Amino acid sequence: MNKVSIISIGDEILIGQTINTNAAYIGEKLTSIGFEVVRNFTVGDVKDDILQVLSDAEKISDFIFITGGLGPTHDDITRTCIIQYFNTKLTFHEETFERIKKLFERRNIPMPEINRDQAMVPEIARIIPNDFGTAPGYDIRKNGKRFFIMPGVPHEMKGMMENTILPELKSFIQSKGIYYNQKILYTTGIPESALYTKLQDLKPLFEDVKVAFLPSQFGVKIRLSVRSNDENLNLQKIKSLEKKIFERVGEYVYSDEELTLEEIIGKILTEKKLKIAIAESCTGGMICNRITNVAGSSNYFERGVVSYSNESKIQILGVSSDTIKKFGAVSEQTAIEMARGVRKISNAHIGISTTGIMGPTGATETKPVGLVFIGYSDENLEFAKQFNFADNRIRNKERTSQAALELLWRMLTGKMNI
Amino acid sequence: MNKVSIISIGDEILIGQTINTNAAYIGEKLTSIGFEVVRNFTVGDVKDDILQVLSDAEKISDFIFITGGLGPTHDDITRTCIIQYFNTKLTFHEETFERIKKLFERRNIPMPEINRDQAMVPEIARIIPNDFGTAPGYDIRKNGKRFFIMPGVPHEMKGMMENTILPELKSFIQSKGIYYNQKILYTTGIPESALYTKLQDLKPLFEDVKVAFLPSQFGVKIRLSVRSNDENLNLQKIKSLEKKIFERVGEYVYSDEELTLEEIIGKILTEKKLKIAIAESCTGGMICNRITNVAGSSNYFERGVVSYSNESKIQILGVSSDTIKKFGAVSEQTAIEMARGVRKISNAHIGISTTGIMGPTGATETKPVGLVFIGYSDENLEFAKQFNFADNRIRNKERTSQAALELLWRMLTGKMNI
Repeated sequence: MNKVSIISIGDEILIGQTINTNAAYIGEKLTSIGFEVVRNFTVGDVKDDILQVLSDAEKISDFIFITGGLGPTHDDITRTCIIQYFNTKLTFHEETFERIKKLFERRNIPMPEINRDQAMVPEIARIIPNDFGTAPGYDIRKNGKRFFIMPGVPHEMKGMMENTILPELKSFIQSKGIYYNQKILYTTGIPESALYTKLQDLKPLFEDVKVAFLPSQFGVKIRLSVRSNDENLNLQKIKSLEKKIFERVGEYVYSDEELTLEEIIGKILTEKKLKIAIAESCTGGMICNRITNVAGSSNYFERGVVSYSNESKIQILGVSSDTIKKFGAVSEQTAIEMARGVRKISNAHIGISTTGIMGPTGATETKPVGLVFIGYSDENLEFAKQFNFADNRIRNKERTSQAALELLWRMLTGKMNI
Repeated sequence: MNKVSIISIGDEILIGQTINTNAAYIGEKLTSIGFEVVRNFTVGDVKDDILQVLSDAEKISDFIFITGGLGPTHDDITRTCIIQYFNTKLTFHEETFERIKKLFERRNIPMPEINRDQAMVPEIARIIPNDFGTAPGYDIRKNGKRFFIMPGVPHEMKGMMENTILPELKSFIQSKGIYYNQKILYTTGIPESALYTKLQDLKPLFEDVKVAFLPSQFGVKIRLSVRSNDENLNLQKIKSLEKKIFERVGEYVYSDEELTLEEIIGKILTEKKLKIAIAESCTGGMICNRITNVAGSSNYFERGVVSYSNESKIQILGVSSDTIKKFGAVSEQTAIEMARGVRKISNAHIGISTTGIMGPTGATETKPVGLVFIGYSDENLEFAKQFNFADNRIRNKERTSQAALELLWRMLTGKMNI
């Protein structure tokens, strides 16, 4: 009744030249209003393949969303396939013709002949106007199924979804009494398997609330979702399970809103009116880059120093050359002096530092690739923590930056066990 | 014989929470060695649906690539589906068990019991080792078809593709007498449409050599490709067209190998025995981060300063407070003094700087979001160039970092028109 398939048409997606963001957008929007997306198909600009996919999608879903192949050039064959699939014919659509004509007038360009042809539309289709381009969309009903056919250009498709399709479908689904609710918990510092183990006794409850674990190098998201005809009950069920999850693994959850760790840190620093400064050796600027991805970060991020050479550690940060000589640049002592140094020169409240060996070169007998020290310094406390990330260079940088931000977040929220 | 389907398993893709970059990556890699991708499927964590898609994909393709659902938790059901689909059973795989055990040892974490279960693998599968995570991959042959099953975590999947699957399939396809050859020209500093216009007279030649333009925020790649049973002829055709393209737009091509702009810069700096230092304000560490993504960058990257506050520009870089007062932090003059300052304190040969307004806040009446100055300083020459990027914050940072690296590359190669 509310099952959806999404069909993306175009060689450029199959050969990996274009990443399929359209399917993600449509899937997200439809899920959020209560539909259940059961399948995505991507198919090339090949008539028989498109006809096959239309038929496959119709078998398993009630709503079929199709994007791509509606342009005016020779390789756009979606309309031809639609005509054949629905056994209909083309008819001239006056309003579309006028709309396209005006579009070119507004752009001060004479209308090319090939665009006139876009006003020829499948006879059985209701036309969805395109506010941002020439190709009209089609809305076709057949045997209780409904097909929406839209252009592949993302903002043209989004215009049709937002202005026409979504408002209509939202009323439809609410009239059927279906509600979908979800909550995402963002964790860091614990692998998926360990997280799961800690929640294992809750597994019987995962029948009632759907729970998914989504790992990445920046932590594991836990998604709770319920679909039913009782929105209050959905929210209640999610809340109740969320509470139980928090009791078990709350110390790893940095957000229950859709925010990154650096955004959460930014909110806390702003609230507490604290400034930070970062001294990065092995992460080479990645931590500063992540922090400054957040709008307004200039309010709490004072400066960063990418002290790649020993000279820069000594000269800018005031790390003692004896410390480097005695313990090495990759050491607990150097990490602490870096964090202290960057805090002091910047008058920031907190200094954070990283020093380590990211590989593939640079390892010594006692210091393997992946060895990292993260330093912390504030007025009252200084320490460094050792990590071992035995990954490739980029991953080691990512994991170190994540561990440093996690350490900062724990110190700011009192969740650190030192 | 070389037809491919790609199956992505996971609710998070269907509901649009994760964009399907895996399918794009696999599609691109397989296309580049001569395979023909005919379909992508995405299916949720639902057993009957997965079995259906396996069967649909097997009907239309010779090679089936499956990612996702191999993790250790309850919603990972790919292995169960594989067991049922191929009518096989689980067997203990000693090597995988040892590999997983070592992985946890290296990370100094006790191995959770559920990871042990990942060493139980389908009996008929050849095991593909996972260099970056716990779940092993499977390589299964059935009735002349071949199935590769991999984890959904992108870098784990990529590791398997690059270390095991692609080398093997490349030999396979060449043994069939199919040769796919390609050359990619990496350009920067020119939009796709302008590039295309400059090459328009070559369009008739695009019939013989397939030409694709692949734009991103880091420049436009031009891919030339030919598939035939005569490798020499392929290479000859590509070379001939490449020459013509170079004559028209060679000044924008920074690489004809698969190297990033920062890798190319690293090669040149190493060759010329030059050291650089970077002072970043608006890019917030992104340039340093990109430069230090390259292995061996410590040989030519001396240091970076992320001088977000005015104080840090004055104190570390020696920018004059009068300059900032008179012209503002976002100005040609400040950019030049930043580049000079970071070069001088570091004794590097070249200093590069960025200062600008990345948005969404920070604009003034005379200085809009997207206004950027990039500074350059060496012993003999100093200047700053103005740019206007009217994009969102992250895109503005990316475009500024790209423009700064392009400027550095042009100065190093004598391709700069100042």
